[in-house]
Amino acid sequence: MSSIDTTVKPSGPPPENKGSIGPGVIDVGLRFLLFATALVSVIVMVTSKQTKLFPVPMVPGLSIAIVAKFNQSPAFIYFVVALSVACLYSVISGVLSIFVLMKPGGNSTKLQFHFVILDVLLFGIVAAAMGAAGGVGYIGFRGNSHTQWKKVCNDFGSFCSHFAASIFLSLISSITLLLLVWLSVYALSKKISK
Amino acid sequence: MSSIDTTVKPSGPPPENKGSIGPGVIDVGLRFLLFATALVSVIVMVTSKQTKLFPVPMVPGLSIAIVAKFNQSPAFIYFVVALSVACLYSVISGVLSIFVLMKPGGNSTKLQFHFVILDVLLFGIVAAAMGAAGGVGYIGFRGNSHTQWKKVCNDFGSFCSHFAASIFLSLISSITLLLLVWLSVYALSKKISK
Repeated sequence: MSSIDTTVKPSGPPPENKGSIGPGVIDVGLRFLLFATALVSVIVMVTSKQTKLFPVPMVPGLSIAIVAKFNQSPAFIYFVVALSVACLYSVISGVLSIFVLMKPGGNSTKLQFHFVILDVLLFGIVAAAMGAAGGVGYIGFRGNSHTQWKKVCNDFGSFCSHFAASIFLSLISSITLLLLVWLSVYALSKKISK
Repeated sequence: MSSIDTTVKPSGPPPENKGSIGPGVIDVGLRFLLFATALVSVIVMVTSKQTKLFPVPMVPGLSIAIVAKFNQSPAFIYFVVALSVACLYSVISGVLSIFVLMKPGGNSTKLQFHFVILDVLLFGIVAAAMGAAGGVGYIGFRGNSHTQWKKVCNDFGSFCSHFAASIFLSLISSITLLLLVWLSVYALSKKISK
């Protein structure tokens, strides 16, 4: 079984002591950041609905309402699902991390191992969702003359600014997950070198 | 400094002994698989060019040639760049892994640590590229009636089958990178529990 390494050594030098407590606190902080960014990203994406009236050609005075919603594209649906999973996961793993921090023994290697395994998986899911939403969003923003896909952001500005913000937040979620994995790997390899 | 754990113990039980040598060999195998899938994925995507003649309406006998190439979409350009980086990285890390395997001492924790750090980063890059290409490719395959983006795969079948194959191969590359990270984390945590 794993040995517990985060016991505070009164005789040790202050910088080392600080370093052995640090990763756990940073871990909880990063999980909170992941929760916040993923939650806001989902909310911003889900509330992006925009309705616009377009005049009907040849019929003066008549307009039709066209609605832009996130669920009109499978990429955005996947994005919302992936970020929701990340949000839920950050709550569960964050609470577990706090319990581990509050335990007198400190960090447990086994839990840390399971966290890295799931963090990496989720990192891939969120990165793929960000890529998919970013790829489709870019077409909406700039269009593609080769395939004659017209840009939609000139007509649906509010919708587009919503999803641009959402994608930016998902980028922060991805970076947070990357940092979480790096931190755990660093903590694991530090335990070996001790 | 790290201790070296892969020395063959003649007195040890066979399953444990096998386990201590296994990860290094699997690591090299996975890096070779990553190299093969990333390389083939890039080649298939780059060679996806398709030219098709379309008759000009109202002018009988006259046709115009329309070319479909991967570099007509920024998502596909990013995809090719990301998979090329993955391919190059797999060569460098694979060769280093083989050197480590051939060294009498076996696995080095420090190198393994650096490998995980880079593997995770690359996993995110490849997953995002797969997502972006998949998202745009899906529009090409099915179109989007809400934004009036017409599907192009009915006209450019060969181009589309090329990029479908390429995206599938990138999925295998992503899974390989995920397994590489999991393997390294498993090897690291196994060293702690010893």
